[in-house]
Amino acid sequence: MSFVPPLAASTVADILLDLFIVLLAAKIGDEIFKRIRQPAIVGEILAGIIVGPAVFGLVELGETLTVFAELGVVFLLFWVGLETRLSDLLQVGKVAGLAGVLGVILPFAGGVALGFGMGEETGTAVFLGAALVATSVGITSAVLLEMGAMDRTESRAILGAAIVDDILALVLVGVATGIAETGEFDPLTALVVLAIAVGFVVFVGVGGTKLLQARPALLQTPKFSESPLLPGVIICLGLAAFAAEIGLAAIIGAFLAGMMIAETKDEDPIEEEVAPLYAFFPPFFFVVIGMQVDLDAFTDLGTDALLLGVTALAVVTKFAGAWLGARSLGPKGAAFVGVGMVPRGEVGIIVASIGLAAGAFDEELFAVIVGMSILTTLIVPPVLRRLADADAPDGVT
Amino acid sequence: MSFVPPLAASTVADILLDLFIVLLAAKIGDEIFKRIRQPAIVGEILAGIIVGPAVFGLVELGETLTVFAELGVVFLLFWVGLETRLSDLLQVGKVAGLAGVLGVILPFAGGVALGFGMGEETGTAVFLGAALVATSVGITSAVLLEMGAMDRTESRAILGAAIVDDILALVLVGVATGIAETGEFDPLTALVVLAIAVGFVVFVGVGGTKLLQARPALLQTPKFSESPLLPGVIICLGLAAFAAEIGLAAIIGAFLAGMMIAETKDEDPIEEEVAPLYAFFPPFFFVVIGMQVDLDAFTDLGTDALLLGVTALAVVTKFAGAWLGARSLGPKGAAFVGVGMVPRGEVGIIVASIGLAAGAFDEELFAVIVGMSILTTLIVPPVLRRLADADAPDGVT
Repeated sequence: MSFVPPLAASTVADILLDLFIVLLAAKIGDEIFKRIRQPAIVGEILAGIIVGPAVFGLVELGETLTVFAELGVVFLLFWVGLETRLSDLLQVGKVAGLAGVLGVILPFAGGVALGFGMGEETGTAVFLGAALVATSVGITSAVLLEMGAMDRTESRAILGAAIVDDILALVLVGVATGIAETGEFDPLTALVVLAIAVGFVVFVGVGGTKLLQARPALLQTPKFSESPLLPGVIICLGLAAFAAEIGLAAIIGAFLAGMMIAETKDEDPIEEEVAPLYAFFPPFFFVVIGMQVDLDAFTDLGTDALLLGVTALAVVTKFAGAWLGARSLGPKGAAFVGVGMVPRGEVGIIVASIGLAAGAFDEELFAVIVGMSILTTLIVPPVLRRLADADAPDGVT
Repeated sequence: MSFVPPLAASTVADILLDLFIVLLAAKIGDEIFKRIRQPAIVGEILAGIIVGPAVFGLVELGETLTVFAELGVVFLLFWVGLETRLSDLLQVGKVAGLAGVLGVILPFAGGVALGFGMGEETGTAVFLGAALVATSVGITSAVLLEMGAMDRTESRAILGAAIVDDILALVLVGVATGIAETGEFDPLTALVVLAIAVGFVVFVGVGGTKLLQARPALLQTPKFSESPLLPGVIICLGLAAFAAEIGLAAIIGAFLAGMMIAETKDEDPIEEEVAPLYAFFPPFFFVVIGMQVDLDAFTDLGTDALLLGVTALAVVTKFAGAWLGARSLGPKGAAFVGVGMVPRGEVGIIVASIGLAAGAFDEELFAVIVGMSILTTLIVPPVLRRLADADAPDGVT
């Protein structure tokens, strides 16, 4: 019978308790790190390591927490979108494109080379390359927002580069899955995936923005509700879900939704009203990243060495690629963009999971990729802050 | 390995799509009902019937939607708590207590009598009584908030009576489960359950409120975050989870949390900041109620007749009990309280599920209780609005 509630009342009680513990832990980690003048999100990730299976095991990662984490990064990027104008993004288009493409090519080549060097099969090597490509713009965005640095040219360049990065990563993961599963490279499928992803971004980002520029009233039909919050949130969820359904990151859809809505006249009220959603959900995203740490996987010294090597390769190749692409912003600006692209965050963990499912990664490589994703995520925020606290970067496009 | 994300990216994409569909459907139902000047929540429940398995089956009721629905009613009652002062509640204490107790005794007696009249066993008869007791204060609160009638004496009386009602219902469900499973009535367990529930409400409601009256600074430590939102929401989630863990409704904890926080000086900013959470989550609660409708269960005329009989009994006994208890508010005030206590909503559905799990209800009786819960929920909002639109009720405590 379709009637029966799928969860017993006691299960719902347990899930409420999990949400409470996660939010409380995040807040405590956040406050401690603010007081020692470190990036709050690092405190939240460490809180996740502590309450998660790695240390106390107070909370298990189930469906609800996973969805809350996803909504966390979705509302984070929605917020970033609300602070971004299409015109600002187009202005840094060339730098962002270059940084995005070079920031994909170098890590991919590095990962593939490392894979072959380790004597792995083609599927595994290609997957290793794809895993090194992933960039978590959510982490960088959170740091930039915390520093109030979202309106800098470098920040726009990072956002634009992250979109290019995500599209190429999507194609590469598709290619890698194909090779791991069938042993063959299928260029036609890769082209179709690329065309759909680019089409979505251009159609929604440019088309949607122009539409709302021309007709902001679409979100403010006089009798349609008291506030634009729910229409805005519905558009965000719809585009995030659509992006995710075609295999892109949901956050790309959320970001484009925010950018569209930013064009309407009533931008300010919607920012005020989205703020509590933006305060409520993102802590789940950061804590859940920490919960995915499994310290037991790193008791073997060989694994530790591999982790350090892969992490170093991930940092150097991504930084070098993005830096090269962004060098028209001057050395400091390029360094800012390069560092901003380094965190692999949840995207690296997702690619690792796909690789595990496709049989390309064994448990050790999987643990190494997850470890690398979290290490790059923990390293970047303090560095980025220091770079921003130094003199304003020289040179602008 | 504890690492592996529990959900594939495609599953997360599907859940995002479900959330989008539910929110969009709720908004459409809401707007249509506002335009035809009917209570918006009825439109949202009907939207749930349409997108749910009963009609189009666009969305399945899984873990995430269940948790979102629960958070919906939790934030709804948190909001109601924020608009309630303990002193106002204590002022209507006598009326609320009488309305609560009589509003439990009559439906319980009616249900048990009906059960024995139908030739059911003791366990089933007692469960039927317990199922008729359940009151969904969430539904009534939503209607009162929509009408801006939350500060009326009758509304306070309904809130107080609902707390009494929920405590007694908890005890009755415990007793009924004991009888259904062991065939015996265990007075000691019943007393312990009662003592814990009353203790929680008094300790948190009165003690917590006095604490925050004396030290509002507890929520505003200067360096502790920019806004009181997250501490407030954390307290709400914590008390909701705690109430749920001891078997009370989570909403009782959420309501008490709101009432505590309302005593702190910065009540107004927190209301502003909770507003978007209150706009975001409750639609899931109403849509999910509608999704639990299974029209197929009512193709049998005998079942339909039973549904009508049980619904009539549920309406008449609850109205009469609460009316008798509240008659010091004058006939109109008492009628308002009586009608306000009628909706069974999600609480009736939960009791029905427990009865099904305990073996006290067969599928037909289960479907009938769920149907009764939804019918009482759909009937009340228009009636309550009409009562409120009529002259202000005469007489006050």
